Amino acid sequence: MDPWRTAIVQADHESIRLHGHDVLELMPHRTFTDTIFLLHRGRLPSRDERALLDAILTGLADHGPGAPSCAAARLVASGNRQSLSAAVAAGVLAIGDEHGGAGSLCMEMIARGVSRARAESISVLEAARQTVSAYRADGRRLPGLGHRVHHTVDPRTAVLFGMARAAGLAAEGVEFMEAVDMAMKEAGKIIPINIDGALAAILVDLGFPPAFGKLVFIIGRVAGISAEVAEEYDREKPMRIRIPVEYDGLPPVVRPGE
Amino acid sequence: MDPWRTAIVQADHESIRLHGHDVLELMPHRTFTDTIFLLHRGRLPSRDERALLDAILTGLADHGPGAPSCAAARLVASGNRQSLSAAVAAGVLAIGDEHGGAGSLCMEMIARGVSRARAESISVLEAARQTVSAYRADGRRLPGLGHRVHHTVDPRTAVLFGMARAAGLAAEGVEFMEAVDMAMKEAGKIIPINIDGALAAILVDLGFPPAFGKLVFIIGRVAGISAEVAEEYDREKPMRIRIPVEYDGLPPVVRPGE
Amino acid sequence: MDPWRTAIVQADHESIRLHGHDVLELMPHRTFTDTIFLLHRGRLPSRDERALLDAILTGLADHGPGAPSCAAARLVASGNRQSLSAAVAAGVLAIGDEHGGAGSLCMEMIARGVSRARAESISVLEAARQTVSAYRADGRRLPGLGHRVHHTVDPRTAVLFGMARAAGLAAEGVEFMEAVDMAMKEAGKIIPINIDGALAAILVDLGFPPAFGKLVFIIGRVAGISAEVAEEYDREKPMRIRIPVEYDGLPPVVRPGE
Amino acid sequence: MDPWRTAIVQADHESIRLHGHDVLELMPHRTFTDTIFLLHRGRLPSRDERALLDAILTGLADHGPGAPSCAAARLVASGNRQSLSAAVAAGVLAIGDEHGGAGSLCMEMIARGVSRARAESISVLEAARQTVSAYRADGRRLPGLGHRVHHTVDPRTAVLFGMARAAGLAAEGVEFMEAVDMAMKEAGKIIPINIDGALAAILVDLGFPPAFGKLVFIIGRVAGISAEVAEEYDREKPMRIRIPVEYDGLPPVVRPGE
Repeated sequence: MDPWRTAIVQADHESIRLHGHDVLELMPHRTFTDTIFLLHRGRLPSRDERALLDAILTGLADHGPGAPSCAAARLVASGNRQSLSAAVAAGVLAIGDEHGGAGSLCMEMIARGVSRARAESISVLEAARQTVSAYRADGRRLPGLGHRVHHTVDPRTAVLFGMARAAGLAAEGVEFMEAVDMAMKEAGKIIPINIDGALAAILVDLGFPPAFGKLVFIIGRVAGISAEVAEEYDREKPMRIRIPVEYDGLPPVVRPGE
Repeated sequence: MDPWRTAIVQADHESIRLHGHDVLELMPHRTFTDTIFLLHRGRLPSRDERALLDAILTGLADHGPGAPSCAAARLVASGNRQSLSAAVAAGVLAIGDEHGGAGSLCMEMIARGVSRARAESISVLEAARQTVSAYRADGRRLPGLGHRVHHTVDPRTAVLFGMARAAGLAAEGVEFMEAVDMAMKEAGKIIPINIDGALAAILVDLGFPPAFGKLVFIIGRVAGISAEVAEEYDREKPMRIRIPVEYDGLPPVVRPGE
Repeated sequence: MDPWRTAIVQADHESIRLHGHDVLELMPHRTFTDTIFLLHRGRLPSRDERALLDAILTGLADHGPGAPSCAAARLVASGNRQSLSAAVAAGVLAIGDEHGGAGSLCMEMIARGVSRARAESISVLEAARQTVSAYRADGRRLPGLGHRVHHTVDPRTAVLFGMARAAGLAAEGVEFMEAVDMAMKEAGKIIPINIDGALAAILVDLGFPPAFGKLVFIIGRVAGISAEVAEEYDREKPMRIRIPVEYDGLPPVVRPGE
Repeated sequence: MDPWRTAIVQADHESIRLHGHDVLELMPHRTFTDTIFLLHRGRLPSRDERALLDAILTGLADHGPGAPSCAAARLVASGNRQSLSAAVAAGVLAIGDEHGGAGSLCMEMIARGVSRARAESISVLEAARQTVSAYRADGRRLPGLGHRVHHTVDPRTAVLFGMARAAGLAAEGVEFMEAVDMAMKEAGKIIPINIDGALAAILVDLGFPPAFGKLVFIIGRVAGISAEVAEEYDREKPMRIRIPVEYDGLPPVVRPGE
């Protein structure tokens, strides 16, 4: 079999290097968030870039056992106490376009909008208006807006945008999402930018590709999933969860035909 | 259905709190590693505790595509390009007692050894000698010693023990593992303490329960798995992997019996 | 890399053979249950053996969305609509010693009991009495007895034992479990043999190893999990599930220490 | 929490019913394949329908350890010996549009083609020609044609089409795929209908929705994955797999910037 190629890790008997950086140098001098940035971007972050990624990861880390990811992890811990990995993995599996995936979808929307603004020499606000109109005409929800718990405002958004602006790292991504917010208000809709929309704007400005919008959710949420799985093991008995169920199908077959 | 209980997250329309700490305060002022510590221990770490956890997570983050976790993730990415989560989850599933689980097993061994030293009023070195003898008598490998790539020394161990000692955080855990190392040498075996043994010693000294030895591997390695999955999507075609296979079973059945 | 060895499948450009049997012969002349038996035993079953395995697989196929496996699968379908596989896999992950694993544990118990009866030249009933006493002395539940829904009798047990006996395939496995049932009654406990206990007895008598007790549950239940995932996709919106949660942890930290 | 609704299973203390059929009646009188059909279609199959589904499931059951699904399962078994479920689940995760998903994509293609033939009052052959032209103009591969091992003919196709025709169950689905085959030949391309294309045609004719094209692959392949996982546990040591890796990234960073 041909060897698998990678540009990420170089490991031999003496050293491990991540994109050329010796892990032994990283361990005492850098943070885990530096390493996450390095693994995904191929270079170490500046102090401000790291602080933004820290804020994003902390903002995503846990939202309680009711989220599908943590709930799935706890159900697996309920039936299978042989493998912590199995429970954490089930939590990861619940992360998709519908749960934790809005950041990635929003990064794609931003990238398209910003490209169009440039290509057509229109303002970012005008491009955002077109984006909002197009989604609304199709009856589609805009990714990065609205939250099932935080109805009127997602307080994490202001924190992230404030940090990005103070560090001088807010660029077209943040500008586009704020223009989307304005275009929504012009259209009479008050649906706040949620954390997914905020992190999407910032990750675009930090130069990450859209897939990272989903991967950063996975990396951040695994911290919370693993803590919730540990709590389930510690505090709860196996098989304690009983979901109430109601049958609404066919009536009993009196004589199953043979 | 009775509500599920949790002591980790309190989320409502206005705020999200992790063990009482407002996420909005954590995001701009704390690091992701602080959040990981908080989620698993219920309190924020000191600066030195955080630095140790950073070093551990970075030391675990990636060891290349040949490790079962990253290899499984890439195989899933090869057959299923619809879900980044599916690929990352498969990588997590490969983490068990045999891969990434030595830290947890070693924490249990240390805890038993340290307890016995206290209960029997013997020195930690004497307790370590007994542990080494017992494992060797049973023909079992000691967890936290040896590595399939780093044969003679795992260079990450010295970094971690150095940091713990410099910060005054090395206690019975580190003492016990160094005693195990000495007892092995007395027995004529040169098998180095690997990163799992080193992090186990430190996590015991930081007060973490054994399960965290496996969870910290999952949290750290997910950073690398996700980067490797992103690379697989970017650089490789689906279904590019062909594992060579050799059949050594029954010969063809000439007339399958009906 | 050395080729991976297997004794199960021989596939080349012209044919696929399972333990020597040409798939093209199996497809029109045999059933899927024959193939399952063949894959796991290395030979095709007799008609009666196949009928017993069919009955076991049908008995395990689905128990409704409240079981942890189906519930986890539905939660993953709720958050991740990009991958049917992800949802089915999450359901599989919930299968462990606590959910679906009793068959495997019971097969090990039967094997030990039957061995002891032979080794010590005691009756199977006497061996079963010893097994019951030992479990009760340790405060452990006996695998294969009791069910959280079917309290007094698991009606699937009589069907399986009846079929095995009618076919002349009931042997020491069935004998041992019926002796366990008798020993429990002698001890004043009325806890019925459940389907896991029944299938364990029969699979021992058919010559399967204990691991198959868990694998047969996975194979059977995947039929139900996949049907429930399809129903979730068809009938329900993403993110429809809201698990009620109650926080019982630390009070809010008024000023998070910096 | 509102109860979850289902039309599949009705389970109470006394009975379990699948779409109205008592499991106690199904167990001794029906096969597992009947149960799979019942769970997914809501009714029991005829004898010929069952035989076709048996042939499909057997045709999919295993293709050796080199397929991504079985390879991923074995890698997980290599690192995590605590959970058979984890290994099987990893195998399921590798099933996606690229591996095992062609049946589902092909069912969608057939459904669109057959609808167009009706809507536009053109022959099925003409509709198939349009489909082939459209895919080729877009540079897309047609689902259900070609195989990486069986280059010139997938022998499983003739078996399935022969059975369907003999039973009088071949209808528009089979007709459309044979028309696609003819249209490909007219275009000078000899790419055989593979098992995914064959089962897609038949499942359309049996009235299954496209999602079942992927679910049937999962159900069938789980039989093989589980047998391969059992073999890995029995015959191989943990961590035996070493994928060869070649680094082609950045050179070592001599002094990591602090």
